Amino acid sequence: MSDELVASIKATVGPKGWIADRSGMARFLQEERGLFRGAAQLVVQPGTVGELSEVVRLCHAAGQPIVPQGGNTGLCGGGVPNETGREIVVSLARLNRVRGIDPLNYTITVEAGCILSAIQSAAEAADRLFPLSLAAEGSCQIGGNLSTNAGGIQVLRYGNARDLVLGLEVVLPDGRVWDGLRSLRKDNTGYDLKQLFVGAEGTLGIISAAVLKLFPRPRAVETALAAVRGPQAAIELLARCRAGSGDCVTAFELLPRIGIEFVLRHMPGSVDPFATPQPWQVLIDFSSGESGGAVRNALETILERALEEGLVLDAVVASSAQQAKQLWKLREAMSESQKHEGGSIKHDVSVPVSRVAEFIEAASRAVHAEMPDLRIVAFGHVGDGNVHYNLSQPVGADKAAFLSHWGKFNRIVHDIVVSMGGSISAEHGIGQLKRDELAHYKAPLELELMRKVKAALDPRGIMNPGKVI
Amino acid sequence: MSDELVASIKATVGPKGWIADRSGMARFLQEERGLFRGAAQLVVQPGTVGELSEVVRLCHAAGQPIVPQGGNTGLCGGGVPNETGREIVVSLARLNRVRGIDPLNYTITVEAGCILSAIQSAAEAADRLFPLSLAAEGSCQIGGNLSTNAGGIQVLRYGNARDLVLGLEVVLPDGRVWDGLRSLRKDNTGYDLKQLFVGAEGTLGIISAAVLKLFPRPRAVETALAAVRGPQAAIELLARCRAGSGDCVTAFELLPRIGIEFVLRHMPGSVDPFATPQPWQVLIDFSSGESGGAVRNALETILERALEEGLVLDAVVASSAQQAKQLWKLREAMSESQKHEGGSIKHDVSVPVSRVAEFIEAASRAVHAEMPDLRIVAFGHVGDGNVHYNLSQPVGADKAAFLSHWGKFNRIVHDIVVSMGGSISAEHGIGQLKRDELAHYKAPLELELMRKVKAALDPRGIMNPGKVI
Repeated sequence: MSDELVASIKATVGPKGWIADRSGMARFLQEERGLFRGAAQLVVQPGTVGELSEVVRLCHAAGQPIVPQGGNTGLCGGGVPNETGREIVVSLARLNRVRGIDPLNYTITVEAGCILSAIQSAAEAADRLFPLSLAAEGSCQIGGNLSTNAGGIQVLRYGNARDLVLGLEVVLPDGRVWDGLRSLRKDNTGYDLKQLFVGAEGTLGIISAAVLKLFPRPRAVETALAAVRGPQAAIELLARCRAGSGDCVTAFELLPRIGIEFVLRHMPGSVDPFATPQPWQVLIDFSSGESGGAVRNALETILERALEEGLVLDAVVASSAQQAKQLWKLREAMSESQKHEGGSIKHDVSVPVSRVAEFIEAASRAVHAEMPDLRIVAFGHVGDGNVHYNLSQPVGADKAAFLSHWGKFNRIVHDIVVSMGGSISAEHGIGQLKRDELAHYKAPLELELMRKVKAALDPRGIMNPGKVI
Repeated sequence: MSDELVASIKATVGPKGWIADRSGMARFLQEERGLFRGAAQLVVQPGTVGELSEVVRLCHAAGQPIVPQGGNTGLCGGGVPNETGREIVVSLARLNRVRGIDPLNYTITVEAGCILSAIQSAAEAADRLFPLSLAAEGSCQIGGNLSTNAGGIQVLRYGNARDLVLGLEVVLPDGRVWDGLRSLRKDNTGYDLKQLFVGAEGTLGIISAAVLKLFPRPRAVETALAAVRGPQAAIELLARCRAGSGDCVTAFELLPRIGIEFVLRHMPGSVDPFATPQPWQVLIDFSSGESGGAVRNALETILERALEEGLVLDAVVASSAQQAKQLWKLREAMSESQKHEGGSIKHDVSVPVSRVAEFIEAASRAVHAEMPDLRIVAFGHVGDGNVHYNLSQPVGADKAAFLSHWGKFNRIVHDIVVSMGGSISAEHGIGQLKRDELAHYKAPLELELMRKVKAALDPRGIMNPGKVI
């Protein structure tokens, strides 16, 4: 990187807009778990879209590679630079204004650096709901959420991040700003360009602002925990819940016995509501704008009938917000509690909802054949066909030795996923972590189409090189 | 077109797969209203995706332009060939199999030539809903619906055609088949290529099959007609309906007094349910999977409160399915009844929902300034910000003379739409009709991006040339 380029960038963003010392840059150069670490000559934090545009223009002219970064909460290393030190990180953190909210249009316009929970709060203050919700919501940024097409716990009802965006403003790889910041429900005037940038992990341009859809705030949320024999019963119960509630199901999470045990063992204050240990459980949220008790009735009716028919083994409907929170704790603590059980080899995969049980069965047979005493913790958003298929090390095993099998188990599990028409990255994206897996599994024709799109939009290849494609 | 190419295509599709005589081709070469007419050397109707692929491969090798065609119900001439006779029409009509339905996954897999109403019926037979619904549903094909990102009357709750597709199979401009026929709710493995083909009006490839989302069938649908002072009151009522019903609003249509009068005058059996003529009316559907009357209560409660506060002037909630049908007839007959009032200059536009009233007011002032006695019939899907802003000729005027002002009024109305951040084609697309308008209004940078995408995917420019871009 030439001194001239560095000087021009510094002059563009001013003294508040760049960091060049090692300790100041540290938190931008690795992700929280330390799984990905990189180096950079400069971390740039533009304070306006104009500054961002100019920085990208300068980099484009010099062929300087850029790594865009949001809240740096990604799990696949998509926002972390490589180790060469030749890249610069462009953080969107200072572009964090809510530009406007339009309650009658059910939209909010935000800059890329807005923290997800701040957007949720701004919507709530206007008696609206922004439904995107995930574990990192207190620190992740919406630009990153859109660039990775984030999922989370309410996808079943409201869709992924992609489904929540009406318009985008994007700084293109040559620094020009595309103003696609429309707030329209219907617009059929040519190719829907915003779709290219959503989920592209910063490889086609930098999202600088977005118009997001808002929804009515639910007036009633009812939570239940239902014990079922297994995943197939869970999926059948899901179909009944959707059909019997007018599609009021906002969350439907699968919890295996072993996951519950991990939580009970490691998370103080967690409680299993069932007297008898149950093999599998599903955590269900019904939401409604109608507060007259109809949605609770619907939930109870469906569960009662399922109990009579043996589809559900036992069930509890939360009688208070506090009890609902208690039930949710079982789900929310599942990843964290696994850490206490040693090494864990993770898979964020999806299959058609109807094939979740078949997938869990086939994958479990295959990984147990390879290592009989590893512990399978398959949980998550089964309402979307999305299973966090995690493998905890055998009791007493060496963590590092177990984790050295990561690639092998990935191959076993992903082979089964792909054979069922599934996805090897349901919601976390590709980044660096799964780039080789993508190349291995994606059809050559699809990779070719992706490369054509990349070459058309970023011919100099400066946008987040080495990620995704 | 060389004799050799013609012979190869005929040999590929067999005797049932092509039409070359003038009378047989006629219905493929113009759309129903006769607004667009073209010529072609051949109409090809492949019977399998393999045949379709081979036909496109042959055309690609020869540089032969192709016009893909679905049910030929489009309103912008996107499926009609030009007048040179150098193009061929590729009709998808024979690719009309439902390949499968998966009720537990809430998906259906269909070929491009499936008639929309046939898909609705197949879903219903499996106790599911396919919510895309529009006037042409008895003859339009799903491939065309997806290629134009069709809208219709339930967009408010279920989204446009784009939002209803999980996967696509596409024959690319060089004849290769991209199998993106996934049926996953979550898949973050690279660029979402299917989005490129949805709404591209056949300019980037030919959609041959799709996986579509299904929904629970509503158990209760409640219909109301509410009289309001004007569009602003309608929009405020909409926001209350969404918030007060748990987002059960599936349709919200604005009907102006003059439109009602046209229907009452020309459509036998139509009835105005209000004793006093009302200036504006909104037709509202609430849908729910819950059949215990909660949704009807919600609707009645919202309307009663709005009546007390003067937001609503009068209202009727249908007491039977038949009465609901009667009310819907007022909406459905609006386009048809306008034909009896002479020439009509049409605009299918959208603005942010919150600006619908401002738009109607500004546009009406401007067109009346130009021609004081023309009759403004502004109606439609205001729940989506989508207004069919139609101008009926003055009483007794010459139809042809009135229609000669089409371009002038388009410019007046579209200028206002664009100044409000709106769209000059909300749901009908661009085709031939609005190609020049698109070039006039779209930002040069956006047109450039669209051309880059087109060049990347269809470098020889054989896919539906002269449409959209």
